[in-house]
Amino acid sequence: MTDFSYTVSATDGAARLGQVSTAHGMIDTPAFMPVGTAGTVKAMMPESVAETGAQIVLGNTYHLMLRPGADRVERLGGLHKFMNWPGPILTDSGGFQVMSLSKLRKMTEEGVTFQSHIDGRKFELTPETSIDIQRKLDADITMQLDECPAHTDDKKVIDESMQLSLRWAERSKAAFDDRPGYGVFGIVQGGVFNDLREQSAKGLINMDFHGLAVGGLAVGEPQNVMFEVLDGLMPHMPADKPRYLMGVGTPADIVGAVSRGIDMFDCVMPTRSGRTGKGFTRRGEVNIRNARHADDPRPLDEHCKCPACKNYSRAYIHHLVKAQEILGPMLLTWHNVHYYQDLMWWLRKSIGEGSLDEFIKRFHTDKEDGDIEPLLKER
Amino acid sequence: MTDFSYTVSATDGAARLGQVSTAHGMIDTPAFMPVGTAGTVKAMMPESVAETGAQIVLGNTYHLMLRPGADRVERLGGLHKFMNWPGPILTDSGGFQVMSLSKLRKMTEEGVTFQSHIDGRKFELTPETSIDIQRKLDADITMQLDECPAHTDDKKVIDESMQLSLRWAERSKAAFDDRPGYGVFGIVQGGVFNDLREQSAKGLINMDFHGLAVGGLAVGEPQNVMFEVLDGLMPHMPADKPRYLMGVGTPADIVGAVSRGIDMFDCVMPTRSGRTGKGFTRRGEVNIRNARHADDPRPLDEHCKCPACKNYSRAYIHHLVKAQEILGPMLLTWHNVHYYQDLMWWLRKSIGEGSLDEFIKRFHTDKEDGDIEPLLKER
Repeated sequence: MTDFSYTVSATDGAARLGQVSTAHGMIDTPAFMPVGTAGTVKAMMPESVAETGAQIVLGNTYHLMLRPGADRVERLGGLHKFMNWPGPILTDSGGFQVMSLSKLRKMTEEGVTFQSHIDGRKFELTPETSIDIQRKLDADITMQLDECPAHTDDKKVIDESMQLSLRWAERSKAAFDDRPGYGVFGIVQGGVFNDLREQSAKGLINMDFHGLAVGGLAVGEPQNVMFEVLDGLMPHMPADKPRYLMGVGTPADIVGAVSRGIDMFDCVMPTRSGRTGKGFTRRGEVNIRNARHADDPRPLDEHCKCPACKNYSRAYIHHLVKAQEILGPMLLTWHNVHYYQDLMWWLRKSIGEGSLDEFIKRFHTDKEDGDIEPLLKER
Repeated sequence: MTDFSYTVSATDGAARLGQVSTAHGMIDTPAFMPVGTAGTVKAMMPESVAETGAQIVLGNTYHLMLRPGADRVERLGGLHKFMNWPGPILTDSGGFQVMSLSKLRKMTEEGVTFQSHIDGRKFELTPETSIDIQRKLDADITMQLDECPAHTDDKKVIDESMQLSLRWAERSKAAFDDRPGYGVFGIVQGGVFNDLREQSAKGLINMDFHGLAVGGLAVGEPQNVMFEVLDGLMPHMPADKPRYLMGVGTPADIVGAVSRGIDMFDCVMPTRSGRTGKGFTRRGEVNIRNARHADDPRPLDEHCKCPACKNYSRAYIHHLVKAQEILGPMLLTWHNVHYYQDLMWWLRKSIGEGSLDEFIKRFHTDKEDGDIEPLLKER
């Protein structure tokens, strides 16, 4: 079993081409991790997820601890076996969903108690229990428990929250049981305040995590604010560790963050959009519910090699979505995840060739003039 | 292009092993046709449907004429291309769903007018328009428009309805445009009355359809009543044409009907059950929602070779169904369709080997004593 490691094979400006090695396999970075909330990337067979080029998926500790329960997943052989995903898995700490989904929360220095949104049962999540749950799930990459304040909170609140997250980081790292191929990431907080972000990063660096994540972004702030925070923070991030921007984002968010040195991403956008009739294409987003697609024999994206684009017309997918047929979300989700992996493949290729600037320029070219077409079709 | 044809290669008692040749390929009979109501076998990719061994799927004229519309399907290249199913397709006439789903029906000698259950638009369905819609859909096997009385109606009503269906049969056959590889089937009606069934069959035989269906069964009557009707009717059915029992049924219904000489079946049972948490196994039906499956590491059916059984535990599928994850219906539907095709494969093999009686005996053996286990696992 190899150690958990991160190696950089090329850089292009601040962007890095690299590989993360885990107990369940390698991850080429920059990487996008499809979200498998409750032990399934919604509406996809795991074989199909792998076919898109995805090498790692994300599981949500909050959802899995409530149902089916971490002890049960452990008894059944861990999350890889349970969900038939033999590759690497990253789990979040559960903290973010406790704040956004659960009821009757009580936060203390020790941790947070809350009621399940499913059946009202009471649970406690502390840095130690979160790490223990993620060990039971058998996550290759474990995340520290952090607190996620609202991005509209004032600086004093953000500062205190960031300090609490740092203390929880220390306890999380101490609770993490080092095993070959398994790693734990700290999470930089501090809202939109550069000095707080710097302080958070420096505190975490001292704790020697296997990687650092950036939390508390893509929570409602404009894209330029997110990029400014990254611009201020990235010089303080260690060069020899993977950097993970949590919950991000749109294709343009990802392109901008990769150019600033981010290595890993996750977001529900491609999967959730697939269930609401939206398709990502290199010409922009397509709302397949729109009546203008009803007679369109063309594929969603004529340069895409996913099964939805190879074998079906826009007219057919439009019909499926209007008729609320399950195959609609199945095809759209597959396409969207494939599109995101196409994008990551192209970003990696461009960094390796030192042509990232050119790629970004073409990515932002007017998407109707045809110039964008060859952008992702070579893969 | 080969003609539409049916050949018998072996018989075992009344049961027949045969092949139907159509414009889009061969169908080994006895055959079970998964139902692709609105141009999709719900929750399955068509490649997966083919992987189960299914060679033909059924489309519902009523659903397709309302949405996306027969003209649109024709413009888009026909149903095969539209739904990415290159193999044979049978469409029903639309009559059955008009009776069961639409609103404000008005029946005359000419046909039936009705309002769409989706948007209230008015439609007319006559023997001629039904045939024309099915031609636009490009069905390999077209069904005549018939009337489907309630099985509780008295003999006079059933008789009059059967006579109407015979007149509609004549008009349907006249409207059908003969093309190589395409066929049209007549439908025997007559409820549970042997003399009416005989009269219906004889009337249809004179019209020289490419095959005969048995309609108006599996509509609420007990299984033994259905079998008695078949026992009375089958001696009057032509030996050189395929025989299709519409809307049937449970595995035991199919086994009993095959032994009586039926060649083709369709039913929503495997697909619909897959969306309500039910799995068919050679040990009987499993309700995967039951709490006793929550920790069960075994597959749904240990002898089944479908992806749901090869790669997932009962505990996982239980979790998916409880969490209302789309992958739950996806896996259960795949398994159920695979199970039905396993059953058909075994029935064909047994007829070919002259061992159908032995198979049926084993099929009905106490499903807990282990004797049933090897029944379907050889395929």
